Amino acid sequence: MSVRFESIGTIRSPFKEKFGIPRQAGLLPEITSILILDEPFAKSEALVGLQDFSHLWILTLFHAHLDREWKPSVRPPRLGGNESVGVFATRSPYRPNPIGLSAVELKSIEREGKQALLFLAGGDFLDGTPVLDIKPYIAYADALPQARSSFASHAPEASLNVHFEEEALQVCRQHAREDLESMIRGMLALDPRPAYRQGEAEENYAFRLLEFDVKWTVRGKDVWVTRLAPAGGLE
Amino acid sequence: MSVRFESIGTIRSPFKEKFGIPRQAGLLPEITSILILDEPFAKSEALVGLQDFSHLWILTLFHAHLDREWKPSVRPPRLGGNESVGVFATRSPYRPNPIGLSAVELKSIEREGKQALLFLAGGDFLDGTPVLDIKPYIAYADALPQARSSFASHAPEASLNVHFEEEALQVCRQHAREDLESMIRGMLALDPRPAYRQGEAEENYAFRLLEFDVKWTVRGKDVWVTRLAPAGGLE
Repeated sequence: MSVRFESIGTIRSPFKEKFGIPRQAGLLPEITSILILDEPFAKSEALVGLQDFSHLWILTLFHAHLDREWKPSVRPPRLGGNESVGVFATRSPYRPNPIGLSAVELKSIEREGKQALLFLAGGDFLDGTPVLDIKPYIAYADALPQARSSFASHAPEASLNVHFEEEALQVCRQHAREDLESMIRGMLALDPRPAYRQGEAEENYAFRLLEFDVKWTVRGKDVWVTRLAPAGGLE
Repeated sequence: MSVRFESIGTIRSPFKEKFGIPRQAGLLPEITSILILDEPFAKSEALVGLQDFSHLWILTLFHAHLDREWKPSVRPPRLGGNESVGVFATRSPYRPNPIGLSAVELKSIEREGKQALLFLAGGDFLDGTPVLDIKPYIAYADALPQARSSFASHAPEASLNVHFEEEALQVCRQHAREDLESMIRGMLALDPRPAYRQGEAEENYAFRLLEFDVKWTVRGKDVWVTRLAPAGGLE
């Protein structure tokens, strides 16, 4: 059976590229994403009662993967990137139907003209992600803390100590809109490097967060934020 | 953004109609559903490691609702059927994109020719439901027992006492393939009646389960299974 779906809205997220996004929802509750619902899905009747749920399921489209083939086998980062697992045993985006599933906290709902804005904490969404559905989190049916989750049996731990070069810290502190410093601290502590590069000697990396290219260097268990440059700016 | 999805398989379930299906997954763990994966999604590589997860998310199509309009407001059975709530604050099938989400227990995986069969406990699926995706349940990200779930804050309780007329019980016991008696007991104890009819005087109901039309009558807090007739047979 084949069916066509239309997105009902779009996510605005500080994560501008896949690199650096935590591997599941909920790992960085200090990160706020905004789900912008479009007409006709933004109408108030459709949202009545939503604020009485503390958490929501957001079903998304892995839009960066729409034109890619699915892969029966994937190498989850959690397994060091060198062990293959069936795609259905992972949350990888390389799926036959590239639907993402994230449990997030609903902080507030605001209206802006004809749009409804849902402020969500703990999202693992790439900026611009199309949304297919919003469902309430129903604890008695959805919370199975006793479930056995194989290689993903525990949350990844903050494993790196994060330091800032003075100039990078200044840029963070001049940026008033978000707490850039704690966002970067949270992301880097979780060690976003591909597993096969962990353990290498000094390496330089960068990811795009909000309107910045964040540059960083790892030395052993310490990561140094060396520079925050305007995204896409000249070197 | 618009996207076309193909189902990857189909559910075989004892529930042959919507009436009588428990309102969320997990309420009747004694009910087994079989997810039949088709080629090319059934290939062994795609399932490697799946058996190391005790629970799975099954994303389905509410296929009985594909040609229906979505409704911004719905009246959840849990609210007695006379209070309206926004569709996104419910798990109702009347959604813009009619995708279902169920957490089930994975009992076993078997192969039959080119098909893979996943035996699932606790499913709330209508027979013939098309499947869009299978994901592992990851407890550290998905289990939020502290989540506040508004009107669905606790599981519906078994509220009716179930009795069988002698003849109906005989039919159950002659049926060797499934434990029909305990399936019917579980379903009826949860009181599948629409809320607005609860509290009415004696009423007769029927639902189709496996190849039977199960007929039952409620008197106060007691429900009597009066007859099991071959489905679609003459009266």
